[in-house]
Amino acid sequence: MSGFASRAAFDAALADLPEPDRAATGAARARQAALTKPPGSLGRLEDIALFMAGWQGTARPRIACGRAALFAGNHGFVVHGVSAFPASVTEAMVANFVNGGAAINALATAAGLELSVVALELDRPTADFTQSPAMTEDECLAALSAGAAVVTPELDVLVVGEMGIGNTTAAAALCARSFGGAVAEWVGPGTGVDPDGIARKIAVVERALAYHAGAPHTPFETLRRLGGREIAAIAGAVLAARRQRVPVVLDGFITCAALAPLAAHAPAITDHCIAGHCSAEPGHVRLLGHLGLEPLLSLGMRLGEGSGAAVAVSVIRSALAAHNGMATFAEAGVAEAL
Amino acid sequence: MSGFASRAAFDAALADLPEPDRAATGAARARQAALTKPPGSLGRLEDIALFMAGWQGTARPRIACGRAALFAGNHGFVVHGVSAFPASVTEAMVANFVNGGAAINALATAAGLELSVVALELDRPTADFTQSPAMTEDECLAALSAGAAVVTPELDVLVVGEMGIGNTTAAAALCARSFGGAVAEWVGPGTGVDPDGIARKIAVVERALAYHAGAPHTPFETLRRLGGREIAAIAGAVLAARRQRVPVVLDGFITCAALAPLAAHAPAITDHCIAGHCSAEPGHVRLLGHLGLEPLLSLGMRLGEGSGAAVAVSVIRSALAAHNGMATFAEAGVAEAL
Repeated sequence: MSGFASRAAFDAALADLPEPDRAATGAARARQAALTKPPGSLGRLEDIALFMAGWQGTARPRIACGRAALFAGNHGFVVHGVSAFPASVTEAMVANFVNGGAAINALATAAGLELSVVALELDRPTADFTQSPAMTEDECLAALSAGAAVVTPELDVLVVGEMGIGNTTAAAALCARSFGGAVAEWVGPGTGVDPDGIARKIAVVERALAYHAGAPHTPFETLRRLGGREIAAIAGAVLAARRQRVPVVLDGFITCAALAPLAAHAPAITDHCIAGHCSAEPGHVRLLGHLGLEPLLSLGMRLGEGSGAAVAVSVIRSALAAHNGMATFAEAGVAEAL
Repeated sequence: MSGFASRAAFDAALADLPEPDRAATGAARARQAALTKPPGSLGRLEDIALFMAGWQGTARPRIACGRAALFAGNHGFVVHGVSAFPASVTEAMVANFVNGGAAINALATAAGLELSVVALELDRPTADFTQSPAMTEDECLAALSAGAAVVTPELDVLVVGEMGIGNTTAAAALCARSFGGAVAEWVGPGTGVDPDGIARKIAVVERALAYHAGAPHTPFETLRRLGGREIAAIAGAVLAARRQRVPVVLDGFITCAALAPLAAHAPAITDHCIAGHCSAEPGHVRLLGHLGLEPLLSLGMRLGEGSGAAVAVSVIRSALAAHNGMATFAEAGVAEAL
């Protein structure tokens, strides 16, 4: 996996999405039917087991090697006052991740995931997207490739998360351009701006959309113009995971927004993804609908970092534990009628 | 904890419910405010940490010792054809639990819980509640006490679950008598009866309610007349846990229905309980509303056994991992403004 050397390489990857191993899904389904429970009685846990079976290509999927990849970036448009926090917090939180003190450190450990922190040129914010594309073509390709680099063949599952002061504003812009709708429907309080701050966010997104209105509506151009380094890295990681059939657990609004430009063009891009949770950010539930994803958890979380997705991994582990650990009717000698 | 020697002892316990340790809750809240995240951004995880702190009486709650208690019983009314399965399946599944092959075995292990299986006189079903009380006073007290016996002082959390062919019918009867409403609103497919079976369940519940209409509306009488041994055991376990301030994770419709007669009389009985999930059984969401509980998960599960509650324990572990493992602003040197 060498990343994305060119815009054409990115486009080619998105145009050639592998499918799950249907034979493995079928074998897992047959196993589920033989387990000592009424059919379907484990609900979503059964669906998860089949999903993981298809993407891992085995009737007995597992999470022996799981990784949470956390991408951080800074944004030029924060000069417009769209966040409750200064951009310097991005770097401070990256130090906290590295030192093991953040929520994602605790939650990744609890979920049995190793954590990869990828800080993307924090001292070089993207350009202000109200006045130019956020990234040059090379910058966007570098970010996509940095994302792809976290995907390694031994992975059983990949969690993606982000940190970037201001990035709910970029996420809203990506959603509005990818799926339409009023900008106000995609903008929310993020980490906690007040109503004036929300009004500023809406205005900034509207200016950005107007500035880029004439640009080609391709996934790459939308990512490059309205995204950010951490957002492009997530898109690159998810696309690289798909090429290697590694199942992905998505986190909140920003993580999912990274896929919006891809999904608007190639809806199947989310087929290997589980929405770990639905966040408190109002645009997320709308975005999940556009992505065709049903969130696993809904706990009112709104932190980012991959935190909600990491919690979801414990539920996925439970699903696999039942799938692999239960006895069949034949093994247990329980009446087949159950 | 010596169980419930008399009806009066049960009534006395329900009339004297301990409250959480407010000082511990306050200390946990202060810690949450100092952790390196925007206030409230971990949503329900923060609430869970405070809840566990209050009941465990410490600012740093933990789950070092957790138990899933699974109670099994048989019901006399099954002669009326209310279940898709014969009563013999209860005993067969208990053997499966003991041999480690059921869903709850795998899910309890995944959640780091020890499993206690308590089979309650399976060869002696309760009496048919359409013609007599399900249990004598002594039988009900014995079941309550068997439940109380699973609660031991070292427990950090207790999960309660059940197995009993036909017991969604008893649960519906308990709910209808405790909270009113049309019987049809409380009756559902259970493990999978067809529309004719649902009609039979409704008729059986209506006959039972009519038979016992003149009985005293006390928690004990309702449990004794319309419950079952596994259901009374759950009520006894939850009440005993409250006396020892052990937090409880409830499972599905039947587990929650065990508390319906208690909650109708003493709504605070659920204060030390987390609703682990909302099951697919239609009456459960209605019942949770009456109990004042917001489910942690909603995964379409409908197996019982404590399975949904066991999955929820992993989420609770995540909440405590974040609460205990994260750095404070002071420790991390991150701007206090976050």
